[in-house]
Amino acid sequence: MNKRINVGLAERSYDVVVAPDLIGQCGERLASIVGGRRIALVTDPWVEVNLLPAFAETLDALSPQWSKFVVSGGETAKSFAGIESLLNAMLDAGIDRDCVLLAFGGGVVGDVGGFAASLMMRGIDLVQVPTTLMSQVDSSVGGKNAINTSHGKNLVGTFLQPKIVLNDVSVLKSLPDEELRAGYGEIIKCGLLRGEAEFGWLEQNLDRIMARDQAALVEAIALGVETKAQIVSQDELDRGKRALVNLGHTFAHAFETQAGFGAFPHGYAVATGLACAADLSVRVGLLARHVADRIVAHIEAAGLPSRLDALASDGNWHAASIEDSMLHDKKTVGGRINFVLLRDLGDPLVSNEVAPERLRETLLAAGADDQASAVGT
Amino acid sequence: MNKRINVGLAERSYDVVVAPDLIGQCGERLASIVGGRRIALVTDPWVEVNLLPAFAETLDALSPQWSKFVVSGGETAKSFAGIESLLNAMLDAGIDRDCVLLAFGGGVVGDVGGFAASLMMRGIDLVQVPTTLMSQVDSSVGGKNAINTSHGKNLVGTFLQPKIVLNDVSVLKSLPDEELRAGYGEIIKCGLLRGEAEFGWLEQNLDRIMARDQAALVEAIALGVETKAQIVSQDELDRGKRALVNLGHTFAHAFETQAGFGAFPHGYAVATGLACAADLSVRVGLLARHVADRIVAHIEAAGLPSRLDALASDGNWHAASIEDSMLHDKKTVGGRINFVLLRDLGDPLVSNEVAPERLRETLLAAGADDQASAVGT
Repeated sequence: MNKRINVGLAERSYDVVVAPDLIGQCGERLASIVGGRRIALVTDPWVEVNLLPAFAETLDALSPQWSKFVVSGGETAKSFAGIESLLNAMLDAGIDRDCVLLAFGGGVVGDVGGFAASLMMRGIDLVQVPTTLMSQVDSSVGGKNAINTSHGKNLVGTFLQPKIVLNDVSVLKSLPDEELRAGYGEIIKCGLLRGEAEFGWLEQNLDRIMARDQAALVEAIALGVETKAQIVSQDELDRGKRALVNLGHTFAHAFETQAGFGAFPHGYAVATGLACAADLSVRVGLLARHVADRIVAHIEAAGLPSRLDALASDGNWHAASIEDSMLHDKKTVGGRINFVLLRDLGDPLVSNEVAPERLRETLLAAGADDQASAVGT
Repeated sequence: MNKRINVGLAERSYDVVVAPDLIGQCGERLASIVGGRRIALVTDPWVEVNLLPAFAETLDALSPQWSKFVVSGGETAKSFAGIESLLNAMLDAGIDRDCVLLAFGGGVVGDVGGFAASLMMRGIDLVQVPTTLMSQVDSSVGGKNAINTSHGKNLVGTFLQPKIVLNDVSVLKSLPDEELRAGYGEIIKCGLLRGEAEFGWLEQNLDRIMARDQAALVEAIALGVETKAQIVSQDELDRGKRALVNLGHTFAHAFETQAGFGAFPHGYAVATGLACAADLSVRVGLLARHVADRIVAHIEAAGLPSRLDALASDGNWHAASIEDSMLHDKKTVGGRINFVLLRDLGDPLVSNEVAPERLRETLLAAGADDQASAVGT
């Protein structure tokens, strides 16, 4: 039940491997990339304790002098201070441009590790071994990394394509349920982008996936990775078609900004955002209501929130404030909000011509209120 | 007396224009790149006062809402704190991914501006308008940018190729003599890399260049840009042939580390480094002594230091300490120092096989002492 997906980016192409028991058995795959060079392993405190022991023997064999750098603090590590501290620790340890940075952890480790690899002496080789469903599906494909600023999430970063991504589904056995569901939000998105066959497969296999059946997880993750790989290989630098992977995300980012980051997992905001994107697609006349209903039903079957009050009951969900956040999203250009909409399963499009009235209707239907913005706009 | 050099990097190719009176007359050239978008102009306090007024009318016509960001503090701006502060100022001002960053200033502005452009929302378009001889010849070609850390200079950075580089030789009229000579150190390097015709032209035209004859400056700068462009287009990411542009720089970086940055201009250290590289090339049996003598004579004719005691009389020039710095250079891999050596004018090579005794002889001949390293190694 191994899957190998090639992300086609000319000389920056790389493979994403999805399989059980990878970290104990990836020595051969990594050997040709590492070539005996020194590995700088970037991880977080939880992964260090719970997953690194199973990986250590492989690392010892690959790189006798590998070093470990533990990034703590979760999302707060995604800051200038965090990246400066990591780079200085690496320089203190004598990491040079010939070393390989191996990011072993969830989304924060992938972001901070990827950003550090891209900046260290203007770029060293990167290997991603993501350990959460979210990072395996989403953030390990496409080479994006970023840190946050006081102006918002992921506003500062680079593109650095890894040399290989190893998605070990076995490590997901110890993932908290909430994080499994959060990652599944991104898989639903991929199913919607792909079409009836793929979304239908998710509907039929939801129980197996949530029970962490290893074969079902391999299929589901591969579905997500393939979807993103297809899109990214056509638009590496996110100047056009790559916008499609933001289905649900214009809403999700605004919900996160509104509630304050960390109020709920990103994948939960994506799930609610997908429901809103489907509803908006119906309201602008693109999508049949019964398809939107089916999408909402699947989101709820997965234990994910399809409405704002389910996302956070105390969210101060003022429609005007949410709209204001959307206007300040980094994808908003010239004051026009970009939405990814659906004409049908597998038939997305990008539009910056949604009438403000339709957006307001969608937000109110999702549970927002019609009061003036708290910020007083 | 216009020169236009194309830096060939596939879809990242761009032109470097060298001409007098460019900043007042570049509206048409920039219009197709800017396309009416908002410009974020990054500059320094001196350039703001002395050169920006002549550029402002062009900017007004190109980008009615252009904004100005002044980076002060010279080399200290090349820090995490400096880049964070610049990016936050740009975000405060509403700069988005559709804007164009125009770096207008010397090497620090080019580095900080280029780094900021590469990180802002994972990369926005960059235009370089360098205002010193050093930045026109050297740092504007090849897309490198960087900041410093406590471990050394330029250890953290990225590659971002600009859309165009405008080298206005008229702005060099107000450049201090010391900075003109410092930039000329890089031009000598390029002459040595190119061959007899080019180095001979420099020998014959030194007086015109130092007198800031506009036509001579256009030729000299174009010589430097062409040399670097030829090498960079074959090795954008500095994995091989690009090492040749480091002729003299293994020495120069060690001299700068040893003396403390800012003790003398980088170009002065390069000049002394070129003399040392020539001497070392003779000692390892590659170069004829009379060619090395000719190189030293030209360095001195340009008013540049060919020896350590001329570079800084109070430099604590311990040979062992300088060697130690070289061992910690970011180009040193696996404990082997990479030197660019000359077999003849126009015939450079990279070697990591120089015997330590030959290096010591060169350093002692250049004025270093044979005492134990101050750091006690």
